Amino acid sequence: MTANATTSRRGRRRGSGARRSASSGDNPHLEVPFIRRAIPTYDILGEPALERIEATADRILAEIGMEFREDPETVDLFRAAGGTVREQSPDVWNIRFEPGLIRDLLKTAPATFTQHARNPANNVEIGGDAVVFAPAYGSPFVMDLDQGRRYGTIEDFRNFIKLGQSSPWLHHSGGTICEPTDIPVNKRHLDMVYSHIRYSDRGFLGSITAPERAADSIAMCRILFGADFVDENCVIMGNFNTTSPLVLDGNTTRGIRTYAAAGQGSIHLPFLLGGAVSPLTMAGAVAQCLAESMTSCALTQLVRPGAPAVLGSFLSTMSLRSGSPTFGTAEPALGSLVMGQLARRLSLPLRCAGNFSTSKLPDAQAMQQAMMSMLSAVQCGANYLLHSAGFLDGLLSMSYEKFMLDTDACGALHVYLNGLDTSDDALGFDALAELGPGQHLFGTAHTLRHYKTAYYDSALDDNQPWETWSEQGGIDAATRANARWKAVLAAYEPPPLDPAIDAALLDFMTEKKTSMPDAWY
Amino acid sequence: MTANATTSRRGRRRGSGARRSASSGDNPHLEVPFIRRAIPTYDILGEPALERIEATADRILAEIGMEFREDPETVDLFRAAGGTVREQSPDVWNIRFEPGLIRDLLKTAPATFTQHARNPANNVEIGGDAVVFAPAYGSPFVMDLDQGRRYGTIEDFRNFIKLGQSSPWLHHSGGTICEPTDIPVNKRHLDMVYSHIRYSDRGFLGSITAPERAADSIAMCRILFGADFVDENCVIMGNFNTTSPLVLDGNTTRGIRTYAAAGQGSIHLPFLLGGAVSPLTMAGAVAQCLAESMTSCALTQLVRPGAPAVLGSFLSTMSLRSGSPTFGTAEPALGSLVMGQLARRLSLPLRCAGNFSTSKLPDAQAMQQAMMSMLSAVQCGANYLLHSAGFLDGLLSMSYEKFMLDTDACGALHVYLNGLDTSDDALGFDALAELGPGQHLFGTAHTLRHYKTAYYDSALDDNQPWETWSEQGGIDAATRANARWKAVLAAYEPPPLDPAIDAALLDFMTEKKTSMPDAWY
Repeated sequence: MTANATTSRRGRRRGSGARRSASSGDNPHLEVPFIRRAIPTYDILGEPALERIEATADRILAEIGMEFREDPETVDLFRAAGGTVREQSPDVWNIRFEPGLIRDLLKTAPATFTQHARNPANNVEIGGDAVVFAPAYGSPFVMDLDQGRRYGTIEDFRNFIKLGQSSPWLHHSGGTICEPTDIPVNKRHLDMVYSHIRYSDRGFLGSITAPERAADSIAMCRILFGADFVDENCVIMGNFNTTSPLVLDGNTTRGIRTYAAAGQGSIHLPFLLGGAVSPLTMAGAVAQCLAESMTSCALTQLVRPGAPAVLGSFLSTMSLRSGSPTFGTAEPALGSLVMGQLARRLSLPLRCAGNFSTSKLPDAQAMQQAMMSMLSAVQCGANYLLHSAGFLDGLLSMSYEKFMLDTDACGALHVYLNGLDTSDDALGFDALAELGPGQHLFGTAHTLRHYKTAYYDSALDDNQPWETWSEQGGIDAATRANARWKAVLAAYEPPPLDPAIDAALLDFMTEKKTSMPDAWY
Repeated sequence: MTANATTSRRGRRRGSGARRSASSGDNPHLEVPFIRRAIPTYDILGEPALERIEATADRILAEIGMEFREDPETVDLFRAAGGTVREQSPDVWNIRFEPGLIRDLLKTAPATFTQHARNPANNVEIGGDAVVFAPAYGSPFVMDLDQGRRYGTIEDFRNFIKLGQSSPWLHHSGGTICEPTDIPVNKRHLDMVYSHIRYSDRGFLGSITAPERAADSIAMCRILFGADFVDENCVIMGNFNTTSPLVLDGNTTRGIRTYAAAGQGSIHLPFLLGGAVSPLTMAGAVAQCLAESMTSCALTQLVRPGAPAVLGSFLSTMSLRSGSPTFGTAEPALGSLVMGQLARRLSLPLRCAGNFSTSKLPDAQAMQQAMMSMLSAVQCGANYLLHSAGFLDGLLSMSYEKFMLDTDACGALHVYLNGLDTSDDALGFDALAELGPGQHLFGTAHTLRHYKTAYYDSALDDNQPWETWSEQGGIDAATRANARWKAVLAAYEPPPLDPAIDAALLDFMTEKKTSMPDAWY
């Protein structure tokens, strides 16, 4: 019996009881397994400008080429597909592609696909008008207001899964939410995948740090979903970074091939820090991003045509005084809007941006940068928004408080993406006509009919009068978020998991862990 | 000699020396007297939905009508223009307008006009693709991290003018930045207008609290610019609120008539709190906003065809648990985007939104809400953005720290509105080609050519590594903003003002002040 069957029979609502017991911030009418964008995308460039960017991406691939390392099988695949291979050393190849070649390879990739969750009510679509929010990914550190910054542990990792599962405003459990640095590097992927399965019933990302860890991740999904189901459906995705500029190393390409061969999803992300690994000028960064991500996506189609592949974009800037990376600034917001246009022209799903920030605290800077970045992702038509919650300290730290602030903002974005209803009832002529000029509308039939659902009810914003707020201690948003994550964790209840599956997963982990010595690199 | 001649001969750059001495945050290549939007507007509704909103606005005016109070001259003007007047009491009239009538009256209003500043380098266009940022307006309280919240004084008022003048990221000095509550109500307009003239050399707003105070404001401009210049040019604007729902009181309409008769600008703003003075549903609030603001604008054209009039939109929501107003939420952001579309269909300039927040501190909530609101204004094509800096506590308090955070964000919005350059140089093929795959771009010719201007340099964001930030005290953005406003105030130098004009202004004020007893209501 698969987990799907188990949980769907139970007919539970998404999420745990945690948030149902919350005193505020409930907006049941807005809860969805994923969002369907009901507003147009924000398209800032016209056709000629988009064509210039695409032509530059093609020129990069044709005249500079991509470098591949330590994976001759991937080189053979691209050679067979028409790439011009030049061996630079026994383990390094430069491959150039005639304009349009990579684009042609992408034609078999699906424009939209479903990632199945162990609770089918939490299945998400990736692509088209679907929008999926997932936690931030990859921080070595965690931080909270009580203990400050420290290395992440498996306990932190589980905590963030629980906080995510408890929030109706995320749709996906993410992947390496923080690095569980207390577990050996060569074994922590097992604990991470197990924790996603055990503490969440949403979709998640698997390991990408080595091909055998990718294989382990998929094997655990076979235990959870059944091997046949996994062969026919996407139940896990891997998030792969290019080594910018213009390099795909062997570990990455072998990992990509592992996911694609299993028919599983993969995300193809150039992490572009302007001036360091991409041009400082945003159009150049976007062209490079397109070239790198298209090529990485194309590999999946050479391995298994039709395998789900997601175009990726992560644009950042740097402080011109210190050389430090900067996140959540205005220039990448423009770049993200353009990446949305380019992804649609390719008919590929897009992962883009998130609640980015360079701040070291969940303060004004953090949320100003987060909103600049997150709105660009929401407006550009991005489909999968990793880094939707918790991102702080330039992605070096997952913040407990910012996680809560971000998820609350994600809730408001459900309203935003629903757009503006112009039905007769929403136009509300009767509301004004009932009492006429100069009369408050508090008691009108229209107000009474709509007041419970008209506006998003934030769980964290303080909207009280200053006097009340002051009498209650005058605390700031970060302090409220601190109390909130503790309350949510305390109220968390794990979603049910078939004990037989749980035992099989634990057996698999034990076998794997005992088969090799610990490694810390 | 007019002030214009004085300051233009000096040929000073905009702004004072204050910011030039700052150690960071200088972006001279981005400084402009006002922004020309180089990105498209974000249009979220299609033609049929917009027509439904417009038809509802017309229906409101035709079937419910607007109520006018205590200004028979305005009633006569609207009657003569075709309005159907019904006297409800000796001082209260309901006027209904056939669909299209108000729209026809607006055809003489300019789509774009120039507000002249005493330094002509600071003249701003209002309308079209021009975007003008101005400080927040109308708070009775001020707050800072040192003293908390207290009633605003004339010293606070002057401080905010100085802070605004010192920021290259605002373009206009605003109006009642905070209420100078230490000056009698019937005289404070004189000190406010004088302070704008004395401490800033940008455009500003005059008094609207009584018709004679509007007249005084314009009279002071005649001293500054010369009477002939004022008769032929817009040098001051008044910001007028309707008494929603659907009322224009006599004080307001007489003030509007005063500005219009003098050929000066006016802004026509329904302040719509959903569920209280407008429908809870955003489409209804937008339709009402359009009806009220169009009617208020139309009055100017009856007084003096061609007088500058600005459509206004201020949409807010309320907390469904407490009934408190909420600002900077997602629903009004959608409404603002639609108001931009409607203003363009009317060919009228638009004032819309700003850096709104309900927070009582310059914290995460404050800037999250601010960005949600401000980006909607920037994206909707709004032309005049009052409330661009300082807005906190639901507009009850001007915050010194948020003023600095907001202006810094306004700087980044200069970049945003400049859009994405897709010139060959910006596409940066050479940057990647120079060293090829796998090589950092720090030292490429492209990077060296662009690094000084590629990215906005924030004066307030902390982009340092965590360790450096921690060693330096680990302070938050609000604390940095606190230090910053003090440094900017300390470095402030007033722009030069012809002593003869200064003396004439002071004489005018003295005469006015001695002509009447103090009044505190």
